[in-house]
Amino acid sequence: MSKTNPGRFFEDYRVGDVIRHAVPRTVAEGERALYHALYPARGAIYSSDDFAAACGLDGSPMDDLIAFHTVFGKTVPDVSLNAVANLGYAEGRWLRPVWPGDTLRAESQVIGVKQNSNGTSGTVYVRTRGLNQQDEVVLEYVRWVMVRKRDAASPAPDPVVPDLARVVPAADLVIPEGLDFSDYDFELAGEPHRWGDYAVGEIIDHVDAVTVEEAEHMLATRLWQNTAKVHFDATFREDGRRLIYGGHVISLGRALSFNGLANAQMIVALNGGAHANPCFAGDTVRAWSEVLELAETPAPGIGAIRLRLVAHKGAAGDTTLRGEGGKYAPHVLLDLDYWALIPR
Amino acid sequence: MSKTNPGRFFEDYRVGDVIRHAVPRTVAEGERALYHALYPARGAIYSSDDFAAACGLDGSPMDDLIAFHTVFGKTVPDVSLNAVANLGYAEGRWLRPVWPGDTLRAESQVIGVKQNSNGTSGTVYVRTRGLNQQDEVVLEYVRWVMVRKRDAASPAPDPVVPDLARVVPAADLVIPEGLDFSDYDFELAGEPHRWGDYAVGEIIDHVDAVTVEEAEHMLATRLWQNTAKVHFDATFREDGRRLIYGGHVISLGRALSFNGLANAQMIVALNGGAHANPCFAGDTVRAWSEVLELAETPAPGIGAIRLRLVAHKGAAGDTTLRGEGGKYAPHVLLDLDYWALIPR
Amino acid sequence: MSKTNPGRFFEDYRVGDVIRHAVPRTVAEGERALYHALYPARGAIYSSDDFAAACGLDGSPMDDLIAFHTVFGKTVPDVSLNAVANLGYAEGRWLRPVWPGDTLRAESQVIGVKQNSNGTSGTVYVRTRGLNQQDEVVLEYVRWVMVRKRDAASPAPDPVVPDLARVVPAADLVIPEGLDFSDYDFELAGEPHRWGDYAVGEIIDHVDAVTVEEAEHMLATRLWQNTAKVHFDATFREDGRRLIYGGHVISLGRALSFNGLANAQMIVALNGGAHANPCFAGDTVRAWSEVLELAETPAPGIGAIRLRLVAHKGAAGDTTLRGEGGKYAPHVLLDLDYWALIPR
Repeated sequence: MSKTNPGRFFEDYRVGDVIRHAVPRTVAEGERALYHALYPARGAIYSSDDFAAACGLDGSPMDDLIAFHTVFGKTVPDVSLNAVANLGYAEGRWLRPVWPGDTLRAESQVIGVKQNSNGTSGTVYVRTRGLNQQDEVVLEYVRWVMVRKRDAASPAPDPVVPDLARVVPAADLVIPEGLDFSDYDFELAGEPHRWGDYAVGEIIDHVDAVTVEEAEHMLATRLWQNTAKVHFDATFREDGRRLIYGGHVISLGRALSFNGLANAQMIVALNGGAHANPCFAGDTVRAWSEVLELAETPAPGIGAIRLRLVAHKGAAGDTTLRGEGGKYAPHVLLDLDYWALIPR
Repeated sequence: MSKTNPGRFFEDYRVGDVIRHAVPRTVAEGERALYHALYPARGAIYSSDDFAAACGLDGSPMDDLIAFHTVFGKTVPDVSLNAVANLGYAEGRWLRPVWPGDTLRAESQVIGVKQNSNGTSGTVYVRTRGLNQQDEVVLEYVRWVMVRKRDAASPAPDPVVPDLARVVPAADLVIPEGLDFSDYDFELAGEPHRWGDYAVGEIIDHVDAVTVEEAEHMLATRLWQNTAKVHFDATFREDGRRLIYGGHVISLGRALSFNGLANAQMIVALNGGAHANPCFAGDTVRAWSEVLELAETPAPGIGAIRLRLVAHKGAAGDTTLRGEGGKYAPHVLLDLDYWALIPR
Repeated sequence: MSKTNPGRFFEDYRVGDVIRHAVPRTVAEGERALYHALYPARGAIYSSDDFAAACGLDGSPMDDLIAFHTVFGKTVPDVSLNAVANLGYAEGRWLRPVWPGDTLRAESQVIGVKQNSNGTSGTVYVRTRGLNQQDEVVLEYVRWVMVRKRDAASPAPDPVVPDLARVVPAADLVIPEGLDFSDYDFELAGEPHRWGDYAVGEIIDHVDAVTVEEAEHMLATRLWQNTAKVHFDATFREDGRRLIYGGHVISLGRALSFNGLANAQMIVALNGGAHANPCFAGDTVRAWSEVLELAETPAPGIGAIRLRLVAHKGAAGDTTLRGEGGKYAPHVLLDLDYWALIPR
């Protein structure tokens, strides 16, 4: 019997099961520096201890997406090693900052299973929680993936499809303790635009672009201990190309969105997201955002902005999202729906 | 009105204006490790807390050029986003060490403007200061760039061309507080050569070479939060090539110069510099140095050495600097003039 | 007289000489983060302060191979700059953990020299010790290399060939102070397999693979301050290819072996090793292990497992080691023999 991990198949998930993922990970200044070398991240709270302190925090926390990737990576060996596709995200919330030196681990509860009509695969829904060394939940989100069956002949389980919120309500957003944008320094942050300057429906083309290299996405994906072969092994796919981890595109798009959204400082919720098309080394990635919603929060000087972030490999300025039949246009890589905190 | 940063044009600079640059940045062990992975840096003071302590410092400071790149990067969105060319440096001085955990920000004062005769661009001179979280100046330098005009028809400003020192006088070099080379360990530092072993006019070919990769220069340039599109977006230039940030070549050349100048430990002044020709991925970069000047300092055991550092992509051992008509030879990438501290 | 380091030639080694290598190096969280970005390392003790603390340590030490590479890198300018080949390793032992913030230096004693019959080169044996800032030995190993002679006509020294242990005896393995696997959490560590689950002769194919990029091996090799030109300068070899540092393949293979050997947590001895064939960018590296020996230790809950680690660029699942005439098969890159600690 092999000692290596074959990954789980559709039959291995039972609603209610809790999977405690390996391997816990201490994240610190080194991971931060790498994140800022891998992505053109410039958000002031995640760049400067002093700026963060002026916003009421005990120094600069780890970037919101470092927390996401670290937790996500841990789930891969148990959730998506045999996945055919990553289908969606919902109900994601950042519940408390991750600080340099914190150790993160992850747990996932199976909350839904539904076999496909072809009988060879099915959809698995998990609610994943990231926990720190005090067993406090720092992040939670629902993800669903299509997973191969081990044996097409095995019987289908009773289908359970969870009822998921289309959007995290603004009232459920968790503001980091102490965060205060009353004395926010717009000049140091890089842009003058505040909450009230954005309008629902507004589209911001982020202008900048990055051409992606193999070494970069692999460094990133390994840093998050994501073990999916398809990202690292050029012989794995028939076309000899390494598929770039979808989270790399999320971070790239988000970092590019600084230009026009410099003050949308902290991601606090992930409402949904689709990896519309695969990304490969050599692609030049651009991004645009659409303002979807604006909400007040009870915290001092802090508003919430709900954004659609689209990353694409099309021409500069192309903000087409969908093509014929309502399908994503072929150049669209990512369509992400999230809430961020922004000074009012 | 777009929310993205279009950059400033020539008309936007007025002599006397002070630009407070975004985004402050905390630099620490992570940035140091990346610096040492990106460049073959081996200078003992920047490599070892113990070696630095034996030289009178409170541990190993951040590499001198980390301070430079971090400060420089902040100025790009305000100074050189629409620059046609980076024309020169002068009067650069490192005024105090940057320590792991320090937060750097930058300010630039416009000290000169001069429209070009063609009316479509002009030269802007700025004096940039890098400051730490105590608002102490850690670094200052003058840079001048050629910037496009927004409108060729706009009137030319009165020309102001600052009177810049060709060389920082040795008497103006600032020695880090406590630095003492009296008990300098040449064996651990890697070479026996001291101040008195170098002669003005001496040329040192540094022997080693590095072939540059796209992933490397982009990791570096992002780490310094330099946002110039030309370094990241392969579709930006007509030839489909990403131009390598000139500072990457400075650090590469400086690190290569360890072999022959291992004891020229700390850069304390930047007298001038030219990015003679563009550098692209695939280029194999070599370096040679010329000793320009030697000076005593009042600090214990410490001399100053003024060096020309030339980085090039020519054949091994080629120390040609200029070709026909006195122009830089086409293989020369960088011609840098700096002062370093070296044990006597 | 040139100031650059020409490296030592065969004539420059005398049995008994001790070489004190430059440059001391402080290693910390930044080096760790880079290591985990460069290699798919997931060993829980080196990933999580909390997991390490639960195993009796004062937090997570620096990865065992970070210590090895850092020490090895320092020896290159003095030992292998003019080496024709790295011939072997023996009697390697990790004597105490390296902690973030420690400063490492290295010393090598020449313990053997033997001129080759062709008169143009010879074998040099050195015993290298890595020391921390308290002058405690953290690591020691013997390495022998074939080094060119400066002058074929110079007389051969009396041959001295050290008597080296084929394998470090289990009784000589040094267990880190305090290490205790009594309450080892197999679930968090990633696999259920313990000491008693492995059998001598068992072969584990580690399934995963990584296609190697130029930027990655150069980042790694520079981080260890390894200065061998052949790794960085594409113009150095006639075929225009950069040879990948053998230690990069060691770390890659070791990290890949997580899948099947997740609990073989800490390397404590290096019994031997051969870099069977060169590795180049573009190669897809896989690994398999063979259990060579199992031993008890006096430490609580801790067993020792001796493993052959083979890294190769062959097809998935190919565990051929040798071909015709007993020579290494052409796809084999590395054959390493080491002891690791594993929960019983």
